This record gives sequence, C-alpha cells and structure tokens, in this order.
Amino acid sequence: METTTVSQISQHSGQEITLQGWCYNFRSSGKIFFLQFRDGSGRVQVVFSKADLSDEQWEALQSLRIESSVKVTGLVKADTRAPSGFELEGKGIEVVQVAPEDYPIGKKEHGPDFLLDNRHLWLRSEKQWAILRVRDTIIRATYDYFHENSFIKFDSPILTPSACEGTTELFAMDYFDLGQAYLTQSGQLYLEAGIMSLGKCFDFGPVFRAEKSKTRRHLTEFWMMDAEAAYATHEDNLKTQEELVVRIVSEVLKQNQSELKILERDVSVLEKIQAPFVRMTHAEAIAKLRELGSDIGDLDDLGGDDETILTKQYDRPIFIEKYPAAVKAFYMKRDPADPTRVLNNDLLAPEGYGEIIGGSQREDDYDELLKRINEHHLDPKDFDWYLDLRRYGSVPHSGFGYGLERLVAWICGLEHVRETIPFPRLINRKSP
Amino acid sequence: METTTVSQISQHSGQEITLQGWCYNFRSSGKIFFLQFRDGSGRVQVVFSKADLSDEQWEALQSLRIESSVKVTGLVKADTRAPSGFELEGKGIEVVQVAPEDYPIGKKEHGPDFLLDNRHLWLRSEKQWAILRVRDTIIRATYDYFHENSFIKFDSPILTPSACEGTTELFAMDYFDLGQAYLTQSGQLYLEAGIMSLGKCFDFGPVFRAEKSKTRRHLTEFWMMDAEAAYATHEDNLKTQEELVVRIVSEVLKQNQSELKILERDVSVLEKIQAPFVRMTHAEAIAKLRELGSDIGDLDDLGGDDETILTKQYDRPIFIEKYPAAVKAFYMKRDPADPTRVLNNDLLAPEGYGEIIGGSQREDDYDELLKRINEHHLDPKDFDWYLDLRRYGSVPHSGFGYGLERLVAWICGLEHVRETIPFPRLINRKSP
Repeated sequence: METTTVSQISQHSGQEITLQGWCYNFRSSGKIFFLQFRDGSGRVQVVFSKADLSDEQWEALQSLRIESSVKVTGLVKADTRAPSGFELEGKGIEVVQVAPEDYPIGKKEHGPDFLLDNRHLWLRSEKQWAILRVRDTIIRATYDYFHENSFIKFDSPILTPSACEGTTELFAMDYFDLGQAYLTQSGQLYLEAGIMSLGKCFDFGPVFRAEKSKTRRHLTEFWMMDAEAAYATHEDNLKTQEELVVRIVSEVLKQNQSELKILERDVSVLEKIQAPFVRMTHAEAIAKLRELGSDIGDLDDLGGDDETILTKQYDRPIFIEKYPAAVKAFYMKRDPADPTRVLNNDLLAPEGYGEIIGGSQREDDYDELLKRINEHHLDPKDFDWYLDLRRYGSVPHSGFGYGLERLVAWICGLEHVRETIPFPRLINRKSP
Repeated sequence: METTTVSQISQHSGQEITLQGWCYNFRSSGKIFFLQFRDGSGRVQVVFSKADLSDEQWEALQSLRIESSVKVTGLVKADTRAPSGFELEGKGIEVVQVAPEDYPIGKKEHGPDFLLDNRHLWLRSEKQWAILRVRDTIIRATYDYFHENSFIKFDSPILTPSACEGTTELFAMDYFDLGQAYLTQSGQLYLEAGIMSLGKCFDFGPVFRAEKSKTRRHLTEFWMMDAEAAYATHEDNLKTQEELVVRIVSEVLKQNQSELKILERDVSVLEKIQAPFVRMTHAEAIAKLRELGSDIGDLDDLGGDDETILTKQYDRPIFIEKYPAAVKAFYMKRDPADPTRVLNNDLLAPEGYGEIIGGSQREDDYDELLKRINEHHLDPKDFDWYLDLRRYGSVPHSGFGYGLERLVAWICGLEHVRETIPFPRLINRKSP
C-alpha cells in the first residue's frame, strides 16, 4: 500500500493507496459516508461503507468537520462520473486533527472583507486553489519561454535611491544615514544596464504603488515581469510579446483544464489567443473609438473605458502602437516617421480586461535622452548612471513588462485582482 | 549572411556571420587588428586585415574605444587556442556608437567604492558577467527542481503588518491610514498557509534586513528561496534540501564551465558535491569543534568562525541538526526524543562559506505553538492567523530556505556577497 497524491491516482487504478490531506466536504447517508478529499494536488471522493470499517474508524468519520486533516486508505476505482475519473472505495481512515469548532468559511456567502481577513484560510477554497495554480503555470511558462530564448534572469533592486517622478505614489522609508529609500515601481531602467552586459534579460519581482486608487484593477504590491533586449527594435519587441502571451495561454490550456473548469472559464475564448494579434496605431484606435461613439481627442491616452470598448470588438489581444509622445514616458524612442509619436505599444487583453503589457523601443541617443529628461522636468542628476548607458556603447534596444495579477485575472476570467495574489495589499489592507 | 550570437557560433563554422555587440578590448599590430568582441552570450576574437577592409572601415576600427558598440561580419574559423574554440576572420565592421571619452573602467585596479559607484558599467566586466550567468543557472535549476517535484510558486507578501520580532532590523514605512508596514524578512509563515491549500509551495523573492552589519556576508536586500511541504517530516526535509543542492551544483557544472573558468573556480571542489552530505547533530558538532580547539558551550549557537572551522574538515556540505531549542525560532518543532532540542537543520557549504540553508519541521500543535509564542515574548495577537493554521486541519509540515547570494558566492568562489547581485544594497549604499 503506497502513499501517493490525488494527481497520481490514475497510475494506481485497481490498487489500494493512502492519501494525506484534508476533508473538503462530506455527507452521510445511513451506512455510507461520502468524503470529499483534497490534498493540494487535486480532489477525489472517498466512499466509506460502515461494513468495511472498524467501529472506531466509523466513529472517527462522524467526528470530522470541514477542513479536518486526515489520511485515507482506499481502493482506486475508475468512475466516469467523477471529475478526476476516479473515486476511492474507503478502506481506512486516520484523523490527523479536528478543530474544536466549525471551520469559519462555510457554504453561506461571505463578504469580501470577511474573506480577506481570513485569506490564510480562504486560500483553501477550490476557486482560490485553482487561481493559484494557474498563476503558477503562468510564472513557469514565462521562465521557460525566456530560458529557451536566452534571456538571463536579472534581479533589479527593490530599494531605489530617489523619487525620480515625484513621491506621491512611492513608499518611502529611512535608510540608515543615507536619507530616504523608495520601493521600486519598475525594474526597467536597471534591466537596461543588465542587457549591456548580458544581451537579453528579464526580471520578475514585486513592485509597489502607493496610489490611492481603490479599483478592482489596483493593488499596492504586485508582481511585474520586465524583459529587455539589446539590438532589439520595436518590431522585434512586438514579436517577443506575442510569442510570450501565446505561450502562456497555451500552457495554461495544457496544464490547467480542471482549474479552468472550476473557475467556469470559457475555454473557447482562450483557445482563440493565437498569433497574429490585432495591431493598430494609436491614431487608428482613436478613429475606431470615435466610430463607436467616443469623443476621445487625437492626443489623448486611452482610458480604461476606451480599452474596454475596443477589446470587445476582437477576440484576440490588440497591440496599440505609436502613442503621442506627450502622454508617454521620457525614455521612449521617437518614431523617425513622426517625431510627435513614440515607438511604443500597449497590449490589450480581450473581453474588456484592458492593458496587460506596456513596451517600447528606448531612446538610445544621449543628447535626445537628456533633452527628454529636461522636458519632463526630471533631475538629470538622478539619471546620471542611466545616461551613462548611452554614453558608453549605446545600442538600439527595446523591452516590455507585464503585470502578473492582471494577466492572471484575464486568463482566469476574474472580476477583481485581489484574488490573483496570495496575500493582497490594498490601500485599506496590509494583513494578514 | 546571418545575424547570430557568439553562443551559436559553432553552428556556423566555415560560414560568414554578423554579430552585434561591444568591443571588449582590442590591439593593433601593423596591418592586423585584433578585436575582442562580446555580445552578452559570449566572447570571440575577430581578426581584421587591412587588406580585407575598405579604408573607411579600417579607419572606423582605429576610432574604437573599449565598450564601443559594433556590428562585425566575419568568417567563422575553428581555432583550438581560442576559449570558444573559434575565431572570426573579419570581413566588415559597423560602428554603432563610440563615446567621446575613454571607458571609466580600465585595466588598472579600481577600489570597491569606485566599482560599486559604477555598478551599471562594472556589470559588463567579464567576471561580473560570469557571476550573473551562474546566478541565473541557480535560479533556473531551482525552478526546474521544484516544478518536477510538484511545488507551486506562492508569492508571499513583501509588505507585512507588524514588527513581530522587534523593529531594530526592519525597514518601516507609512502605510496610508493603517500605521506602519514593514518589509518582509522571510516568507515562511505565509508559505505555511499556502501548503494547507496547495500541498507543496515555494517562494523566491527579495527579503530585507535593516541590520547594521557591515561584513562580507551581509546585504540589506537579498533574494531568498523558501520551500514548504505539508505532511513532510524532518527527514523528508533534509532529503529535499540535499537533492536541490546537488541539482543546482550539477546544473552549474553542466551549463557554466566557461563562466567557472573565468572565475578561476576549482571545479573539482564542486564535482564533489554529491549525496549523501555529511550529517551530524548539534551536540556532535560541538564535540568536534572542541576536539579542534574551540571553547564553544553545549548550548551555544554556531558562530561564523565555528562554521568555517567545521566546513574545512569535509569536502561535502554538512547538515547540522537538532540545535538547542533556546537558540532557535519559536516555530520549530521539539524533538520528541529530547524536548530541549528542535527538529531543525542548518546546511553548511564547504570551504568556509558557512550556512547556506536553514530549515526545520514546524510546530503543528496549537497549544505548544501558543506556549512558544509566549515564551519568546511575542504577542499572540500578531500570530492569530498563523495559529489558525494549527486550529483548522493542522498537519505535520517542514520547510527550509536558502539565501541566493550566499549560494552564488559559494558556487562562484567569491569573497564578498556584494558581487553576487546586480545592484547590491549595503548599509552605506542605496545606489545606483
């Protein structure tokens, strides 16, 4: 009799196995006890008959509460009605621990505050379990894609020296005798130093926004993936983004069918995420939005509502490129064909999920970059080291970043990003 | 003529290729120009003859400085004297950018402050390049190992609500209307919530110590990998650690022979990192240290010097297990065979590199854990959610963590951890 996991159960058909986990739910019907068992790798029903158990074991079953920890022994039987394709004919039960009171998260509806206060327990709910597993697949697919494409992981620093773009959205702290340090909002500028050594780099770590926004798309702490490549043009940059997103979605479809089912995600929508993505310039997007009734101006950035309207027109992600320079960051390279525009792109997810990627070719000319820094009323002293990258061996280069939580929300089909990260931090929440 | 990379050069023997990168070094000898070319993936020598180039191209070569960016075209020729096994017979050169002045990092010796001030450029030095590539291999091997063993990536929060163990080593910041938040020192407690949902988890992210230590082993910001598994015993925990470390070292030996050569690392030392590791109890370690002349007490923790002495006795890593409970953290489970000791382990790297892993089985009994919290003068209110993990469906569980920078330092054979991370943060340094 072997100790194994639910995920391995198909390899043990007809055998007696032991599983270690938790009682997800149960019901009793006379001399039959139905235990919904979970062990982190999956879920399976164990059917116990009083006749097969000792009196002590049968009593132990009656003592169970939701989320009690148990070891079960049983015979693996194929069952086409079961989601896993199998169920267990229970042969033994060992109770590891039973709480003195009922589990706080029950079948009734709970409000979001209650669930977030109990996030350490809420994580065990099937939907939360499914989301975290999809998140893991997205992370792995990202590492795998970059590994296969010779990008080196380069951990940009979290503590940064200066409040380059104003302090209103930065978390600040005392740093020994050196004044204040600030939590990073993006590793991009540091990655640009990395690629001058390593050619192609990515980072993947937490970033922070002390922003007083309380929307379903905002967290104060979230995970960001930034990638950057030397000698990569705007066109190369779009290609990498498209490949990465296609890879991530196809990996989730391959690994997480049962999780997507739990999330009631329409899989056919994800199956349409194939190259080539829709592609339009900012000017074309504005024209399209006006056609659809918007009064957006020629040089306006796209708002959340605009993104929603636009993405509902297509079943593939949309690249919107070449935004007006005036609404975009100082480091973006101007489009040689129209210097009022930059060689950038956003990538919008379908179904109204909005921006999941932002990228651009970077300004690689020292004088131009210095001019932009001054135009944006930034202090060139703060960018001394960054300007050095254009002073010594500057090369054309491009990069992009995705916000992990928005990607998870889109792929899982979630309303709110707060469920996409193990312990969300919001403006009104820093615990547990 | 194909644009490719140095790492792919062996696939183009006898062909003409174009490479895009930087001029690492050069020398000229009459009508021959030797260019040490690098592109992030590797380095190769390009030999130009004046006779093969136009006058403009020959002039362009003369204008180069160290770290100028260039595209070179040449014929790939096998050369057994070259580290890569190849060199290029130069056929063309395109200068992308040349600085108006010499590159600041030259052949002369620079002090550490100068190099750290210019970290954004120092990264391009061959040794730093090699270290970052080994770091990348260690990260990838870790992800691969955990993926193959069904651990789910679980991102513990960076912003934490309370200064559980005193504020002296914590970075603190204002968090909206909720008082102060603190930067995490470890994700472990949160991972323990994760495994109750997912079975096995790991996190891998930045952690922080506002510690006024200025030693070659200390950074204020560093990357920590924590792994945790439900139903895993102390013995299971040691096995996972051993497998992971063996896997990491063997992956570096497989992927990074040329990097290790640049680092002048004695590879034979790394080849000895095989299972089984040396294993001794804390009591045995104390006895051994006394034999070696130390006056360490029975219940003392091991200091850095003790670790150095001990690891020089063996050519494999050493597990030291079952420390006195008095010197260890409140959450470690007592050894049933001797309740004055805990079921923990440190793992010491050979050659005096000291502790690279700390792990333990965790206390899973509610009453015992509450008692320890009180004994350690911690506030049980801060641990309410953590105690819930023992209240509802508690299971035996174990975990461990490694500090990435110490692992990189050991594997690369470095004196100081400051070279193991792209942008080190020290008590006297928060920039660039």
